[in-house]
Amino acid sequence: IDSGDTGIKRGFRKAQRLKASDLQLRFCTNETQAARETFVAKLQRLGFDILVSEVFSPAPAAAAVLKERGLRPHLLVYDGLLPEFDSVDQSNPNCVVIGDAAEKFTYQNLNEAFRVLTDLEKPLLFSLGQGRYYKETDGLKLDVGAYMKALEYACDLKAEVVGKPSPTFFQSVLNDMGLQPHEALMIGDDLVNDVGGAQRCGMRGVQVRTGKYRPGDETHPAVTADATVDSLARAVDALLRQRQQTP
Amino acid sequence: IDSGDTGIKRGFRKAQRLKASDLQLRFCTNETQAARETFVAKLQRLGFDILVSEVFSPAPAAAAVLKERGLRPHLLVYDGLLPEFDSVDQSNPNCVVIGDAAEKFTYQNLNEAFRVLTDLEKPLLFSLGQGRYYKETDGLKLDVGAYMKALEYACDLKAEVVGKPSPTFFQSVLNDMGLQPHEALMIGDDLVNDVGGAQRCGMRGVQVRTGKYRPGDETHPAVTADATVDSLARAVDALLRQRQQTP
Repeated sequence: IDSGDTGIKRGFRKAQRLKASDLQLRFCTNETQAARETFVAKLQRLGFDILVSEVFSPAPAAAAVLKERGLRPHLLVYDGLLPEFDSVDQSNPNCVVIGDAAEKFTYQNLNEAFRVLTDLEKPLLFSLGQGRYYKETDGLKLDVGAYMKALEYACDLKAEVVGKPSPTFFQSVLNDMGLQPHEALMIGDDLVNDVGGAQRCGMRGVQVRTGKYRPGDETHPAVTADATVDSLARAVDALLRQRQQTP
Repeated sequence: IDSGDTGIKRGFRKAQRLKASDLQLRFCTNETQAARETFVAKLQRLGFDILVSEVFSPAPAAAAVLKERGLRPHLLVYDGLLPEFDSVDQSNPNCVVIGDAAEKFTYQNLNEAFRVLTDLEKPLLFSLGQGRYYKETDGLKLDVGAYMKALEYACDLKAEVVGKPSPTFFQSVLNDMGLQPHEALMIGDDLVNDVGGAQRCGMRGVQVRTGKYRPGDETHPAVTADATVDSLARAVDALLRQRQQTP
């Protein structure tokens, strides 16, 4: 389930009933401005029944990849995200990791990330998501994907995207549940990142008609959802109904 | 001739001999941080024999295009370049023009350019060049091309590039000289932007082994110079010699 979905609280309560059944539940978000501990605590204060261990986001996934491959990142991320990389050696960087750094996307910081990349024998760029833009109360903001493209062009390289829609990201969630792709279902509002990403990993993908959903999604040229439902609550209802029918 | 070439002063003096012959001379630069008046005055103070009317740069070319097409730009350019757009209506913008804005490439200014584009029914982005990066005394800097890519990705559009290597830019220089492409020769240090751009316009292109030249250029997969010479002075010598032989 994509936890960034709007109007989600009722669906969220319903989703807890999945846990009471024989199903496992995980939350997949591309949140890269805050560490999991922080935004899970915030959700808990808002009354959501959610645990850090149920949440998958790009930063811890990237931290795991970096440690696995012996990489030391130069980080261009939002300050709130830094705790996710506390356990990663950041001395003498041999790669660059960018997240949605917001105001930290300054001319100086972008030039610095670029210089670190060009100084490397084999430049390596990780991007925590590839979103184009998002909306805040004071207007639209360029998302990490735009800055990823700027660095890709300047360095003539292709970034490794960590987070949705990367299949390795979905696979890490499946690994955590001990499931095969065909045993899992992804529910989300973003056709390309939630539904398409999950499908590319071999999972089924259901789109909800809330949040980022646009009517054109149902005739999208590249991604066709396995089902489209009005809300997360409806998706959970259908899932539980189906589950009762096929024990 | 690309006026940004390094070690160019001797070649420049030689190039004046072209004017004394029956040949016409124009300087094509992708300079987008200063208005022509400013950088020509600087070159004159440094002892270069050069006139504003001989210099072609992206900003005046863009200003001409905007006026021709009745477009009103939102400008994201270096302050020093603004005078080039004094004669262009900038009220109620219906397109965005970006140049190498340097420190003006802030998170706020980029978001603002993005919002102007997304508010348009038909978003239209002009980029004054498409350079990846350049070197200054305090290190490498991302050039306008990187920011162009960021906005292209966020808005899902393709920018119109004004300046080298755009064929329309070279054509405007040919128009000024009243010449056909096959009657003109471009000399520059940048294989793709100077030589390749001129060739795509139907001109011949000569690369000099100075400035941005890299040995790999001579076996480049996409662009092959009509000739490669050690310096601008050598290029001019060869040109004058050839001119004397074929009157």
